[in-house]
Amino acid sequence: MLHDPNRVYVFDTTLRDGEQVPGCQLTTPEKIEIARELEALGVDIIEAGFPISSPGDFQSVVEISKAVKEPTVCALTRANKGDIDSAIEALKYAKHPRIHTGIGSSDMHIKYKFNSTREEILERAVEAVKYAKRGVEDIEFYAEDAGRADIEYLAKMIEAVIAAGATVVNIPDTNGYCLPNQYGDKIRFLKENVKNIDKAIISVHCHNDLGLATANSIQGLANGARQVEGTINGIGERAGNTSIEEVVMILKTHHSLGLHTNIQTQRIYDISRMVSTQMRMPVQPNKAIVGSNAFAHSSGIHQDGFLKMRENYEIIKPADVGFPNASIVLTARSGRAALNHHLERLGYKLDKEELAEAYHRFLTLADSKLDIQDEDLHGLVVNKLVSK
Amino acid sequence: MLHDPNRVYVFDTTLRDGEQVPGCQLTTPEKIEIARELEALGVDIIEAGFPISSPGDFQSVVEISKAVKEPTVCALTRANKGDIDSAIEALKYAKHPRIHTGIGSSDMHIKYKFNSTREEILERAVEAVKYAKRGVEDIEFYAEDAGRADIEYLAKMIEAVIAAGATVVNIPDTNGYCLPNQYGDKIRFLKENVKNIDKAIISVHCHNDLGLATANSIQGLANGARQVEGTINGIGERAGNTSIEEVVMILKTHHSLGLHTNIQTQRIYDISRMVSTQMRMPVQPNKAIVGSNAFAHSSGIHQDGFLKMRENYEIIKPADVGFPNASIVLTARSGRAALNHHLERLGYKLDKEELAEAYHRFLTLADSKLDIQDEDLHGLVVNKLVSK
Repeated sequence: MLHDPNRVYVFDTTLRDGEQVPGCQLTTPEKIEIARELEALGVDIIEAGFPISSPGDFQSVVEISKAVKEPTVCALTRANKGDIDSAIEALKYAKHPRIHTGIGSSDMHIKYKFNSTREEILERAVEAVKYAKRGVEDIEFYAEDAGRADIEYLAKMIEAVIAAGATVVNIPDTNGYCLPNQYGDKIRFLKENVKNIDKAIISVHCHNDLGLATANSIQGLANGARQVEGTINGIGERAGNTSIEEVVMILKTHHSLGLHTNIQTQRIYDISRMVSTQMRMPVQPNKAIVGSNAFAHSSGIHQDGFLKMRENYEIIKPADVGFPNASIVLTARSGRAALNHHLERLGYKLDKEELAEAYHRFLTLADSKLDIQDEDLHGLVVNKLVSK
Repeated sequence: MLHDPNRVYVFDTTLRDGEQVPGCQLTTPEKIEIARELEALGVDIIEAGFPISSPGDFQSVVEISKAVKEPTVCALTRANKGDIDSAIEALKYAKHPRIHTGIGSSDMHIKYKFNSTREEILERAVEAVKYAKRGVEDIEFYAEDAGRADIEYLAKMIEAVIAAGATVVNIPDTNGYCLPNQYGDKIRFLKENVKNIDKAIISVHCHNDLGLATANSIQGLANGARQVEGTINGIGERAGNTSIEEVVMILKTHHSLGLHTNIQTQRIYDISRMVSTQMRMPVQPNKAIVGSNAFAHSSGIHQDGFLKMRENYEIIKPADVGFPNASIVLTARSGRAALNHHLERLGYKLDKEELAEAYHRFLTLADSKLDIQDEDLHGLVVNKLVSK
């Protein structure tokens, strides 16, 4: 199935797991706009919605199926015929349709959510895959709460659904509970112990409740998974899903992992802004890769090193993710080198002594003023010359 | 030195590495307020500033030293006498003073930032520790850019500074470059190969450029570090530092790690808000532990499971971090169980058929309205009764 064993497929669920967040709901035209941008970004699969959940969601899956050509369009279902029928219907215009069906796999979910038994749940899982397979060839199965599932039972379930026709098996850490090594071990166990595992792609789907979604996803990929699920800006239920932009840039930066995606990384920043604006979900300034401060160097020690050679403090080129420009921001923590950099930019050339004097004035000013503007810098130099 | 081998010391640098971010600068009274709250939170060390960097920062270290009793107060320096003299002076009122001095350890920093050699840098490191030791007993040494340093050279440097009197050795991943296993391996190598390592505490200081700061810190602690450095809300240079609240809650949730801190976790939410407000740094809704949506369940599948037993979808009790209350939010993605939960809360008891009908009306409403309020729910039921 996999032509290139090192290729990681990117499954975007911004429009499904992301869109179900309070206040993030989009209209169908807004979803189409994001879907087209996701296609341009190079994602392999767009999860477009959960058709049975509401008439609006059904319609969005229909319209996104019509709007994009390259990516697979995926629709979510629970493990029952009504959900699956609705998804097959919603996907009828998709060039590459996929159904994403599944059921709980942890004893906690089996007992307290489904009030059922392991045997019965396994049977429902297999039936759902077989039923979906009659309408769509590409079937992804999710083993909900796999992060807390008994590993032997999980392996049995995965083997059974692959035998029933699943092409992708999703091992979600639904509650964002796992540590990276625990999650990686789970993926490795499946890779080593499920007899027919080579007939399907293992997918990682992590949540960020403990701030570990990105690390868990990477550990899963390092141990044999070849699809990663996530959202733009890491939006999603509770603390959100894996941030696609973080995983993609880790794979691009760390060649030792030997993995690659089809993502056009220079489009990351634009789609991040689009999703943030349309979904009304702010991105904090210190968000990795896409935060407004992600490439801003402000302390004196760092600015000095950055100006000597930017690789001292920069591991990703801002242009690689389409970031407008990296900035040296002047604050009370900035050093002489940064001040001089800005003065030179404004056309001033100061000798060492002049710079020392200007820096002294600068610090007094910066202690009382948050944001040092160019006009303040002109003032610093002019006052200095006058007072000489 | 360590009485309890499983105790992790928490080193907060919100007021130093956090405060140097553009727009985050605080007045001295604001810093004192946060320092007192950090003391109540139970942090072990407060990094109060970088005294040589500006007169305001110097004064803040003086005033914080006077204001807190329990935590160690720490001041940052570069590896030179002027910086260290200033720090000793600023710390003179501290009950438990610590100087945090250090120098670059990667070849990139040694060559392109210091224009120096490994031998010369090692000598400067040792001299700085010895010089600082004359004024303050507790000396933490940072090996800047250790994440990219040659591991044999790093080990030699660490051994030398411990011999010179360093009580804590900080191994920063300055550029947020490492993968968790790489960072963990670095810490383990030092633990196993530096002869005098048991005379000092190893400290982890990570940055979040690739979204891995929390995972790297945990991996470092699992491999022998016993101090973690970070900030409230993960603020800091570029994509920020390790989020202290994430590391603390991982240690509390994952007993298998066998580690614990002194943090009063139920105070986490309040200090998160205080830092966000005073520093004008928004926390995104999907931020782990402290985001406004961190405990909000919105999809139908999740809400149903959550209402049956909250542990189905909740691994941390919101009260454990002082979060006001967990919420079931109604959107177009909500299911019957969530709707019924809210209707019961408002005093309505509907039978199965009535609920199905109300749910149908609810979905139509929710597709066109982002935020379903109690008055909408009253409307749903009243209209339904009228139409019967």
